[in-house]
Amino acid sequence: MEAFSDGVFGVAATLLVVDLALRPPGSPLEQVLHAWPAYLAYVVSFLTIGAAWLGHTAMTDRLEKTDQVLMRLNLLLLLIVAFLPFPTRLVADALNSTSSERVFVTLYGVSLLAIRVVGFALDSYARHEDLYAPETAKDGSDGGGRGAFGSVVSGYLIAILVGLVVPEAAVAVYFGLALYLVLPLSYLRGLRARLRAAR
Amino acid sequence: MEAFSDGVFGVAATLLVVDLALRPPGSPLEQVLHAWPAYLAYVVSFLTIGAAWLGHTAMTDRLEKTDQVLMRLNLLLLLIVAFLPFPTRLVADALNSTSSERVFVTLYGVSLLAIRVVGFALDSYARHEDLYAPETAKDGSDGGGRGAFGSVVSGYLIAILVGLVVPEAAVAVYFGLALYLVLPLSYLRGLRARLRAAR
Amino acid sequence: MEAFSDGVFGVAATLLVVDLALRPPGSPLEQVLHAWPAYLAYVVSFLTIGAAWLGHTAMTDRLEKTDQVLMRLNLLLLLIVAFLPFPTRLVADALNSTSSERVFVTLYGVSLLAIRVVGFALDSYARHEDLYAPETAKDGSDGGGRGAFGSVVSGYLIAILVGLVVPEAAVAVYFGLALYLVLPLSYLRGLRARLRAAR
Amino acid sequence: MEAFSDGVFGVAATLLVVDLALRPPGSPLEQVLHAWPAYLAYVVSFLTIGAAWLGHTAMTDRLEKTDQVLMRLNLLLLLIVAFLPFPTRLVADALNSTSSERVFVTLYGVSLLAIRVVGFALDSYARHEDLYAPETAKDGSDGGGRGAFGSVVSGYLIAILVGLVVPEAAVAVYFGLALYLVLPLSYLRGLRARLRAAR
Repeated sequence: MEAFSDGVFGVAATLLVVDLALRPPGSPLEQVLHAWPAYLAYVVSFLTIGAAWLGHTAMTDRLEKTDQVLMRLNLLLLLIVAFLPFPTRLVADALNSTSSERVFVTLYGVSLLAIRVVGFALDSYARHEDLYAPETAKDGSDGGGRGAFGSVVSGYLIAILVGLVVPEAAVAVYFGLALYLVLPLSYLRGLRARLRAAR
Repeated sequence: MEAFSDGVFGVAATLLVVDLALRPPGSPLEQVLHAWPAYLAYVVSFLTIGAAWLGHTAMTDRLEKTDQVLMRLNLLLLLIVAFLPFPTRLVADALNSTSSERVFVTLYGVSLLAIRVVGFALDSYARHEDLYAPETAKDGSDGGGRGAFGSVVSGYLIAILVGLVVPEAAVAVYFGLALYLVLPLSYLRGLRARLRAAR
Repeated sequence: MEAFSDGVFGVAATLLVVDLALRPPGSPLEQVLHAWPAYLAYVVSFLTIGAAWLGHTAMTDRLEKTDQVLMRLNLLLLLIVAFLPFPTRLVADALNSTSSERVFVTLYGVSLLAIRVVGFALDSYARHEDLYAPETAKDGSDGGGRGAFGSVVSGYLIAILVGLVVPEAAVAVYFGLALYLVLPLSYLRGLRARLRAAR
Repeated sequence: MEAFSDGVFGVAATLLVVDLALRPPGSPLEQVLHAWPAYLAYVVSFLTIGAAWLGHTAMTDRLEKTDQVLMRLNLLLLLIVAFLPFPTRLVADALNSTSSERVFVTLYGVSLLAIRVVGFALDSYARHEDLYAPETAKDGSDGGGRGAFGSVVSGYLIAILVGLVVPEAAVAVYFGLALYLVLPLSYLRGLRARLRAAR
């Protein structure tokens, strides 16, 4: 299960770059700089896929066995992950035009949210069916956090609603959420605690 | 054998998204909605590749040894799987136009059928040559089912014939067959039995 | 070493399909049929990559250790394998036009030959430096054959020369060589012997 | 961690070829030859990714454990590696035009440098946090060299500056640096010593 999944995660993450393109007209420097929405969408999608992969890896490492349903839920997660380059491309175009942004940003937000929800469903199913090795089932190191799941989903839902009015703001929230999911927060907290103790 | 195969399955599944594109003219929402044939073809192909991969994984897990012929049959399966994004693209275009659908939908159906047939041939060859580990050779958990092979092939053949007259109907059948191959039927049956017993 | 290599082999094999396209004008059926050079080039390249991968897998399975030079030779092999989709695309175009075929078919032949030669160099280096596990070093199951190396290289060289005059003939030879490298010849010989004995 | 990383390295390396294209007008031979900047950029990027992968593999082979921060640094490295096909495409175009080269070559150089720096940061972090197996931590075989890190970074910085005036020279330096990182220098030194001793 892991090699195929890692393959889809890796390819989807790398395919995002195929859609990067300059934005003529303008001087070369202007063209490179004006393509910033494409870079932003690339980074947000890459980090979201990366966060989903971190959670997925943490999950497969703890799995003792798999079953039919888990394999299919996994396939559904991969279907959405593999789909992400499409709305990413749309959102990169959307950020550059003035009129057509809302629909594309909404489709993008729904895709990001779906990755998070199906990833959570996978983890919940594995817990419920006792598929995890017993000693690891409780440490909660599921790469992005079960505890924060409610807040992250609320964040996506609010951003999707906000995006209907101010699409750029929604993309900024997606960026923030991707960063939040990827940043090693417990490490940073530990670092801050150590720094504070050292003072 | 498994890493290369998983790579081809994963890449072929992910490459499908490269061909997704909007369908101008129209408002952004209309463009997104009018692209439904591309989404449908994406989902059907992704699920068909996913089902082939589930069967392939179940097979490689049970293999005790491989031989020259199995490696080559496997290569043939991968050749067809890697080819699938091409007829998928054609069928997505076909569903949107009015005149040119038949040829493309037929090519698509033949490709889907070929994946199923070569996958079955792989499994049959491994059984015939005693390549499976003895204790697993009989449990029949080949992800999609040997028992159902005849019905699935009949389904494809009928759909290919139907597609010569009503292409859209054929695509609907391909979708149904992909769902059937992917859904965890024995689990669902068990769930229904448990629900019935609980009443 | 194997996961990265399998990844490049798998992706290169699957990327070949991105360049498949119909050949308008004409009815849908004519367009599909007129694209035959693209299919032929796809199959030749896929089988050549497949044969290289079979040899590569047979090699890595027998490796006991690797060294710096082997890793670099491997990288060179992957560079040429990853390059192959480019001349494949050119040759598919070339077979359809009347004037520009020679250069493209020659570039294609040289790429196919280079894959074979560098693959052979890898194997020879591993033998020379005693990198294979002792019990496997002599069984010669190197997927395509050391014994036949001279004949295969001669075949490519002759085809490259022939292609300067009749490009289509060269492509036919490349197809034949790819089939030869991929077909399980010793199995087929065994089958024939068994059939003969049974009479 | 390794399968996903190898996947991204492999796909990024192979995707480079998607952007190879002929340069009309001209005879077929002229078109093939005039595309040399694209080949050069392909080779430089492939070798740079290959060198990063060699270092990455040497690192993961020696890792005894991973932690949150290492996984995230790794994700950052992959983000830049997966991005590389984009500046590669720009630089291939840049070398062919006369006016717009500077910006693209600079972006390319910064990307190559970033891959090197983040790869070095990964290795340094793993050393600092004692993530390596003890017996391997000191052998220094990190594929490209910690010792040479300072010189390599200086080389990139100088080339980036030079590229602001003579972009072609910068690309030549990038090619040289990629070769330097990939060539098995200690083996070649050993070979020279053996040859000298034999005289």
